[in-house]
Amino acid sequence: MKKGIKIATIGGGSSYTPELMEGFIKRYQELPIREIWLVDVEEGKEKLSIIGGLTKRMWKAAGYPVEIHTTLNRQEALKDADFVTTQFRVGFLDARIKDERIPLLHGMLGQETNGAGGIFKALRTIPVMEGIVEDMRRLCPNAWLINFTNPSGIITEAVIRRMGWKRCIGLCNVPVISMMSEPGLIGKKPGELNYRFAGLNHFHWHRVFDESGKEVTGRILEHINEKNGGTPVNIYHAPFPMDILRSMKAIPCGYHRYYIAQKEMLAHSLEEFHTERGTRAEQMKETERELFALYRNPELSKKPEQLSRRGGAYYSDAACECINAIYNDKKIPMVVSTENNGAIPCLPSDCIVEVSAVISAAGAWPMVWGEMSGAMRGQLQLMKAMEECVIQAAMYGDPGALKEAFMLNPLIENGGEGDKVLKELLIAHEKYLPRFGSEIPKLKEEGWQSQDPVVRVLTEDA
Amino acid sequence: MKKGIKIATIGGGSSYTPELMEGFIKRYQELPIREIWLVDVEEGKEKLSIIGGLTKRMWKAAGYPVEIHTTLNRQEALKDADFVTTQFRVGFLDARIKDERIPLLHGMLGQETNGAGGIFKALRTIPVMEGIVEDMRRLCPNAWLINFTNPSGIITEAVIRRMGWKRCIGLCNVPVISMMSEPGLIGKKPGELNYRFAGLNHFHWHRVFDESGKEVTGRILEHINEKNGGTPVNIYHAPFPMDILRSMKAIPCGYHRYYIAQKEMLAHSLEEFHTERGTRAEQMKETERELFALYRNPELSKKPEQLSRRGGAYYSDAACECINAIYNDKKIPMVVSTENNGAIPCLPSDCIVEVSAVISAAGAWPMVWGEMSGAMRGQLQLMKAMEECVIQAAMYGDPGALKEAFMLNPLIENGGEGDKVLKELLIAHEKYLPRFGSEIPKLKEEGWQSQDPVVRVLTEDA
Amino acid sequence: MKKGIKIATIGGGSSYTPELMEGFIKRYQELPIREIWLVDVEEGKEKLSIIGGLTKRMWKAAGYPVEIHTTLNRQEALKDADFVTTQFRVGFLDARIKDERIPLLHGMLGQETNGAGGIFKALRTIPVMEGIVEDMRRLCPNAWLINFTNPSGIITEAVIRRMGWKRCIGLCNVPVISMMSEPGLIGKKPGELNYRFAGLNHFHWHRVFDESGKEVTGRILEHINEKNGGTPVNIYHAPFPMDILRSMKAIPCGYHRYYIAQKEMLAHSLEEFHTERGTRAEQMKETERELFALYRNPELSKKPEQLSRRGGAYYSDAACECINAIYNDKKIPMVVSTENNGAIPCLPSDCIVEVSAVISAAGAWPMVWGEMSGAMRGQLQLMKAMEECVIQAAMYGDPGALKEAFMLNPLIENGGEGDKVLKELLIAHEKYLPRFGSEIPKLKEEGWQSQDPVVRVLTEDA
Amino acid sequence: MKKGIKIATIGGGSSYTPELMEGFIKRYQELPIREIWLVDVEEGKEKLSIIGGLTKRMWKAAGYPVEIHTTLNRQEALKDADFVTTQFRVGFLDARIKDERIPLLHGMLGQETNGAGGIFKALRTIPVMEGIVEDMRRLCPNAWLINFTNPSGIITEAVIRRMGWKRCIGLCNVPVISMMSEPGLIGKKPGELNYRFAGLNHFHWHRVFDESGKEVTGRILEHINEKNGGTPVNIYHAPFPMDILRSMKAIPCGYHRYYIAQKEMLAHSLEEFHTERGTRAEQMKETERELFALYRNPELSKKPEQLSRRGGAYYSDAACECINAIYNDKKIPMVVSTENNGAIPCLPSDCIVEVSAVISAAGAWPMVWGEMSGAMRGQLQLMKAMEECVIQAAMYGDPGALKEAFMLNPLIENGGEGDKVLKELLIAHEKYLPRFGSEIPKLKEEGWQSQDPVVRVLTEDA
Repeated sequence: MKKGIKIATIGGGSSYTPELMEGFIKRYQELPIREIWLVDVEEGKEKLSIIGGLTKRMWKAAGYPVEIHTTLNRQEALKDADFVTTQFRVGFLDARIKDERIPLLHGMLGQETNGAGGIFKALRTIPVMEGIVEDMRRLCPNAWLINFTNPSGIITEAVIRRMGWKRCIGLCNVPVISMMSEPGLIGKKPGELNYRFAGLNHFHWHRVFDESGKEVTGRILEHINEKNGGTPVNIYHAPFPMDILRSMKAIPCGYHRYYIAQKEMLAHSLEEFHTERGTRAEQMKETERELFALYRNPELSKKPEQLSRRGGAYYSDAACECINAIYNDKKIPMVVSTENNGAIPCLPSDCIVEVSAVISAAGAWPMVWGEMSGAMRGQLQLMKAMEECVIQAAMYGDPGALKEAFMLNPLIENGGEGDKVLKELLIAHEKYLPRFGSEIPKLKEEGWQSQDPVVRVLTEDA
Repeated sequence: MKKGIKIATIGGGSSYTPELMEGFIKRYQELPIREIWLVDVEEGKEKLSIIGGLTKRMWKAAGYPVEIHTTLNRQEALKDADFVTTQFRVGFLDARIKDERIPLLHGMLGQETNGAGGIFKALRTIPVMEGIVEDMRRLCPNAWLINFTNPSGIITEAVIRRMGWKRCIGLCNVPVISMMSEPGLIGKKPGELNYRFAGLNHFHWHRVFDESGKEVTGRILEHINEKNGGTPVNIYHAPFPMDILRSMKAIPCGYHRYYIAQKEMLAHSLEEFHTERGTRAEQMKETERELFALYRNPELSKKPEQLSRRGGAYYSDAACECINAIYNDKKIPMVVSTENNGAIPCLPSDCIVEVSAVISAAGAWPMVWGEMSGAMRGQLQLMKAMEECVIQAAMYGDPGALKEAFMLNPLIENGGEGDKVLKELLIAHEKYLPRFGSEIPKLKEEGWQSQDPVVRVLTEDA
Repeated sequence: MKKGIKIATIGGGSSYTPELMEGFIKRYQELPIREIWLVDVEEGKEKLSIIGGLTKRMWKAAGYPVEIHTTLNRQEALKDADFVTTQFRVGFLDARIKDERIPLLHGMLGQETNGAGGIFKALRTIPVMEGIVEDMRRLCPNAWLINFTNPSGIITEAVIRRMGWKRCIGLCNVPVISMMSEPGLIGKKPGELNYRFAGLNHFHWHRVFDESGKEVTGRILEHINEKNGGTPVNIYHAPFPMDILRSMKAIPCGYHRYYIAQKEMLAHSLEEFHTERGTRAEQMKETERELFALYRNPELSKKPEQLSRRGGAYYSDAACECINAIYNDKKIPMVVSTENNGAIPCLPSDCIVEVSAVISAAGAWPMVWGEMSGAMRGQLQLMKAMEECVIQAAMYGDPGALKEAFMLNPLIENGGEGDKVLKELLIAHEKYLPRFGSEIPKLKEEGWQSQDPVVRVLTEDA
Repeated sequence: MKKGIKIATIGGGSSYTPELMEGFIKRYQELPIREIWLVDVEEGKEKLSIIGGLTKRMWKAAGYPVEIHTTLNRQEALKDADFVTTQFRVGFLDARIKDERIPLLHGMLGQETNGAGGIFKALRTIPVMEGIVEDMRRLCPNAWLINFTNPSGIITEAVIRRMGWKRCIGLCNVPVISMMSEPGLIGKKPGELNYRFAGLNHFHWHRVFDESGKEVTGRILEHINEKNGGTPVNIYHAPFPMDILRSMKAIPCGYHRYYIAQKEMLAHSLEEFHTERGTRAEQMKETERELFALYRNPELSKKPEQLSRRGGAYYSDAACECINAIYNDKKIPMVVSTENNGAIPCLPSDCIVEVSAVISAAGAWPMVWGEMSGAMRGQLQLMKAMEECVIQAAMYGDPGALKEAFMLNPLIENGGEGDKVLKELLIAHEKYLPRFGSEIPKLKEEGWQSQDPVVRVLTEDA
C-alpha cells in the first residue's frame, strides 16, 4: 500500500463526492493517494460524468498527481483497492421520497434512517452490499470498507456480523457535529472537552468531561435546547423534555427527538409534507439539481459553498480522517460503528455499536461504556433487536422478520395504518427488492397500491 | 406451621374472596387451615363486613373448623401468619376507572395493567406494599407472600428485588387459562400437553410439546385466532397477525394483542369508552355492585356463579395450588413470577420474570428458557426496563423515572397527548401518591385538571 | 414408537449390562420394550457373547417377550432405534490401566475421569462418538442418545454442543448416590429431602432443603465426613476440609476430594499403586474377570450380587428411569448433563452442565441455580475451559489444545513430569488416537516410551 | 489544583522514592508540583529521614521550587493532596522474606505477588489501605490514588470495588517492559508497534500489531524465549512451552511462567533458597542496605545507577506518566488496573482488570479485548475468583475465604503441605494480621510455628 493509495468510491456520482475530494486534498501530504475510482450504476451515468469532471478539476487545481477514473464496472474499480468508501443510494433520491411520503400519508414519521423509511432503505441496500463484499473478497481482500451509506449502523452490522467482512468501519457525522457545536453552549471551544459515546448509529448518547476531568454532561444538558444544541441542521429542533434527559444523565443525539418528542417531530414533518416544498427528500432533490447545475460549470474547481446545506457537515472529514488514522496508524479516538465486544455489556458481544474507539492501522478498538441504566438500556436493546430483524428480512427476503421489525419500531403504528405503510412501501420499491419477489406480486394482485399520487408517478417512472 | 395454617388476606373485602375461599375449602384435606384473617382499610369496611359474613357461612357449610376474622388492623392479622395473600386495590375500582378513562380520552389505551393506567396502579400500590413488607419483617418473618395484586410482575419485582423480601411469589391466571383452553384447539385435553413459559407478567410467551415430546407450538399458533384461543375473557380478541407469530415461533399471551395489534385493540376500547356501559372498569364496578348485593344474602353460603364473569378465572386456583405446593413440598411445575437467575439470559439475573418453575417448600425454582431471538428479546428487554423505571418512580417519587417509563411504554404517545395523560393521572390520584407531594400541587397551580367529567367527579368525591 | 421400544446399547458386552437389563425388567410394565440390540467391537466379541446369553436368560426368567440381539454391526443395531445407550470403553480396561499407572508413576493422580487419565479417556472416546452420531443421523434421526460413557459430561458436551446432536442426555450415578445416602446423616429417609444440583459431571455441588423448605445444606455438611457421606465407594474417603465447605455453603460431590484434598487423595492412590493389588483399574480388571466367570454360568438368570462392588450403583437405575421419564412424559426432576441455557449464568449459555432438570418427552429442562460465589465460580469456569480444550484436542487432533488442557487441569503438574505423562500417554494409546497420527511417531522416534513395565507390556500386547 | 500540585507518597521511605522523584523532575515543566509529602510509619523513620534528605538534594539540584516534607502523620500529608501514591510494604522486606521462605520450605513457590506469599502480602496490605481510603474521604476527597503497592491488581480491586473509592488507578511496570523490549525481537523499535493488553495484574496477555495493522503477535511469540523476551529481570527466564503459546495466540506476561512452567520455576527458586544468597527477598534486603548506604551520602543528589537492579524498571515512569496524563488530560493509551466494565466480557463487569486504557483527566477508559478462548478464559476466571477470596479474607478476617483462596491458587498444594504453609504464614505475620486475632492464637496453642529458623528469628525480632 505504501507506494500510493488506491481508493474506490461506490456511489461516486453522489453530490457529496466533491466534499470527500476536498477532505482528501487537505490531507494529501499525510495520505498519498495514487488513484481514485468513482463507481456508479447505469442510471447514475450522467451524474457520475459530471462529478468525474469536477473531481479532476479539483485535483488539478490542488496540484497533486492523482489519477481519477470514473467507471460503471465495479470490479475494475475494486481491483487492488486499499480503501473502499460506500456512499451510494439504491434508487436515488426518488426512493427516499417514497420512504418519506408513504409513512407520512398514513400519519407516521417518514425519514431517511428512522421509522419505516429507514427500514426500507436498509432492505434495498443490504443485497447490493452483499455483492460489493463478494467482489472485495476476490479483488481486494485486504481493503478497508469505510461505509457511510445509510442507515450506516445497520449496513455495518450486516457487513461485519452477517457477511463476516471484519475490515469495515461505519461512519456518521452526527457525533462530530455534537463535538463541534456543544462546547460553545458552556463557553468552551471544540477540542477542550473529552467525549465518550455509546449506542447505535443515530441512536447514541454521550457523556462529556472537561480538562480537569469533571463531568459536564449535566451542564451541557441544561443548554441542549438552545441554538442547535449539537443537532444536525436536517433534524427539526423540537425541544427535548428536560426531565427525561436529567434522569438519563447522558446527552442524546439529535435523532432521539423522534423517539422522545415523537408527536412534535411528527407534527413538523406533516407540516412540511403538506406544503409546496414537500418532504426533506423532495427538498434534497431540488438542492441536488442546483448542485449539479453548479458542478457542470467547467470553471468550478473547488467544492461550492451550497453543498453544506445538505446536512452532511463533517461527513467527509470523518471519512478522510478515519482513512488517515488507519493508514498512518494514528491511534486517535473517533466515534465509529464497529463490533461491540463488551463495550456496551447489555448488547450482544458480536453486534455492531456506535462508540468512541481508538483508530489505528489495526482498525477500531472501542472504549467501554459500562452498564446502562433502565431507560437507556431498554431503548437500546429494543432498537438493536429491531435492526437484527431488518437485516434478517433484507438478507433472506423474510416477510415475518420484516413485520417484526415494523412491530418493534417505536415510530410505526402497530397494526392499523402500519400494515398499509408496509404494503405500499413493498410495492413502491419492487424494483429494488428482488428478494421479496414472491410477496410483492401477491400484494399487487390484491389491489394494493400507494395512496399518494407523487409516489405512484415515481413508481411508474422507475 | 404444622398444627394448622394461619392465612392473612390483605384486601380481604374484595369480591374475589369467595373464590379464594372455595379454593381453600376444596383443598382442606391437604391444606389444614386453622385461621383466616381478612384485612381491609377503613374505606372498605362495609365490603369487608359483607365478605366476612359470607366467608363464615361458606366454611360453616363446608363443615371445617376454621376461624374467620375480619379486621382493619393489619398488624394483628399478620402476626405469626404462615401465608399472606395480597389482592388489594389501592383506591378501589374508582381509581381503576381513572386509569382507564384518562388515557382513553387522549386516544391512548386505558387498561388495568398495561399502558399509563398500569403504571399508575403500580405507583399507588408499591408504597402500600412497602408497609406490608415492613410489618411482615417484624410479625411473620417466615411467612410466604403470595401476591396477586396487579400489576403482579411489577409488584413482585418491587417486593423481591428492591425490598429484599425473598419469600414472595407472584401469581396470575393468564398462563392457567392458556393451559386449560388451548389444548382443545388441536384436539387435546388439558394436562395432555407440556407447557413452557417465559417472559414477564402479562407479557410472556410459551412453547408447547405433546406426550411424545414433539413441539406443537406451530400447530396451536395456526388456531390461535379461533374461539378464545387461550385468552382471558376480559381481553378483546383482536386477531393476532399470523406472520409475526409464525416468525416468533412462540405463542404470545393474550395481552400481547395490545402491542402487536395495538390499533385494533385501541379502537375497541375507545368504542366501549364512548358507549353507555363505559370502560371495563365501569363495567366491573357495576358487576361488583351486583355481586355484593348477592353476597349480603344470609342464605348464600357458596361462591355465586356470577363471579366468574370478572375475568379472574383460575386466579384463586393458582393461589391455593401454589400455597398447597409450598406447604406440602409438592415439587410441581407452575407458572409464577420469581427471580430470573438466568432462566431468561437476556434479562438481568436478579430481575423478576414470569416463568415455568418447580414449586416446593423451598419456593420457586425456574426452568431455563434459553436465549431469545430478536423481536421477542427486544420487546422483553424494553418492557423490563420500563418496569424498572416504574418501580424507581414509585419508591422514590421520582418524576424523571416516571417520564422515562412513559417514554418507554409502547402504548403511550411520546410527547404530545402523552404528557397530558401523565399530568391528569397524577392529579386524579393525588390522594394515593404522597411521594409525588411536591409535583402534584405545582401541576394544580398551573391549572391542570382532568378533561374528563367522570374523572373530575370521582376525584372530588375521593 | 408406541408399538414397542427398540433399544440399542453400544458397548453391550460390558459387565454392567446385566444391571441395565435388571432396570429395564423392573420397568417393563411402563416401558414396553420390543427389542434390545447389544453392540460391541471385534475385540469384545467373546464378552458380548457371554453377556448376550445372560441377557436372554434374564428376560426369559422375567417372562417378557423381548427380543435380544447381539451384533458387531452397529448400523444394524441403530436402524430405527428409539433409544441408544452408550456405555463403551475404548481400549477396554487395559486402556484405563494405562490412564491410571502412567500419571501415578510420575507422582500425579491417575484416575478414570479426572486428571490426565480422564483427558485421555475423552481423547479416545470422542472420535468413536462422532461415528455413532453420524450413523444415528441416517439410521435413527429421532432416537435419544442416553450417554453414560465416561467422562460423561465431556462426551455429552462433544455430542450436543460440537456435533450438534441435541437429543442427548448424559447420566451419572453420583448425584443419585448422594440423594440416597446423605439423608441418613441427619436422620431423614431418601425422598424426604429436596435436592438442587449444579456444576459439571463429577464436579458439581448441591444444596438441600427439607419438607418445610428449610435449607439443611449446612446440617448435612457437618456430617459429610461421617460414614460414606454420600460418596461412591470407588472414591477414597479422605476427609473434606470443613472450613472450605462451610465457606462455600454447598455440598461438593465426592470427586471434589481430588481437588480440595489433593495431597491426601494422591497419597492413597500411590499407596494402592505400589501394592500387589494395583490401581483401581487393575482391581476392576480382576473383578471383571470374576464377573464374567459367573456370567458364563448357564444357570444364572439374574444380576449377581458381586456386580455392585464396581461402584456403579444406581447407574442403570438412572439410565432406565431417564428413558422411562422421556417415554412416558413424566416431567420429573433428575440430575443430568444437558445444555446450560442460563442455569449456571457464569458458564457459557450453550455449554453442557450437570444440573437438576425436569425430564419429559421433550427432553431435559434444567432448573436455574443462579449466580455462583467466588471459589465455586472460579473452579467451575476453570474446569469447563479445560473440558473445551480436551474436546478441541480430540476432534481435531490438536496438540496445542491438549497441552492447554494439561496446563489447566489442577491434578497435573505444569511442566516437569507433566510433560512426560503427556508423551507417555500418547504413545501408550497410539492405537486409539489416529488423529494424533503425526505427533506420536515423532515422539517414538525421539525415544519416548513408558517408564512403567506394566504399561509397556499392555502396549505391546494391544 | 492548577496553582501547583500536592503529592502525598505513602511509603515515602522506600528505596524506590528517588526513582519516583527523578520521574517528577523530568516532567516538571508539564507537571508543576508545589509540594511533596513523604509519609512513613514509626518503624521506617530512619529510612524516611535518609530518603527525605536525598529527595531535597535532588530537587535542589534540579533547580525547581518544590517543597519536600517528611512525616509520620499520614493525615497531615493527605490534607488537600491532589495525588496520593502508594508504594508501602507492610512489615518491610522482612515480611517478604517470610512470604518467600515459608512456602519454599514446603516445596511450593514463594514469591512476592504469586502463590501463598502474594496472598499474605494482600492480607497485610488491604486493612492499611482501608485506613488510607478512610482518611482520603475526609481530607482529600478529589484526589487520585495511584497505587503501585503489590499485589497491585488485588489492592486496586479492594480499593475500587470493595471500598468504593473510584478515583484509583493501579500501575505496574511489567507491560511497559514488554513494550520496550519486545519490538527488538523482530527488528522493530519501541513505539513502532501497537499493543493491546488484557487480563489481571501479573496475569495478562497481549496482542501486537505493526504500523500497517498486521498482527505480529505470532512473530514475536516465536522469539519470546530469546534474550529476556520482554520479561522483567527479577523473574527467572524458564523457557515458555511454545505449543501452548501458539495455541493461545497471545503473548503472556513474564509471570505466567509460574503457571505454565511451574516445575522449572519452582526448581530455580528452590535452588536460590538453598544457596547462601537466599531468596529474592533476602537479596533485595541486601540491595536495599547498599542503596541506603549510598543515599546517606550528602553529596548524592541524583538517583544512583544501582537502583535499577531491583527489577522495578519503568515503575516510576509509569506512575509519573499516569499522573501527567490525568493532570494534563492527555487522552493517551496506557496499561492500568481499572474497572472492567465489559472490556473482558468473561469477567464480572465491576471487577478490576489490567488492560489497555485511554488515560485522561476523567480517569481510565479501557479498550475492549472481546471474548477469550478456552484456556485463557479458564485461567483468568480462576485467578479472579482467587483474588475475590483473598479480598474477602483480608477485609473480614475470614479464614474460610482464605482457605478457598489457597485451594484455588494453582501454585499452592491442596491439602498436605499447603495447610502447613497457611498456618505458618498466619503465625509469622501475626503482628500485621489483627483481623485474624481469633485464629492465630489458637494455632499457636496447638503448637504450630515456622519450621524455618530464619523465619523464626525474624518473627521473634518483629
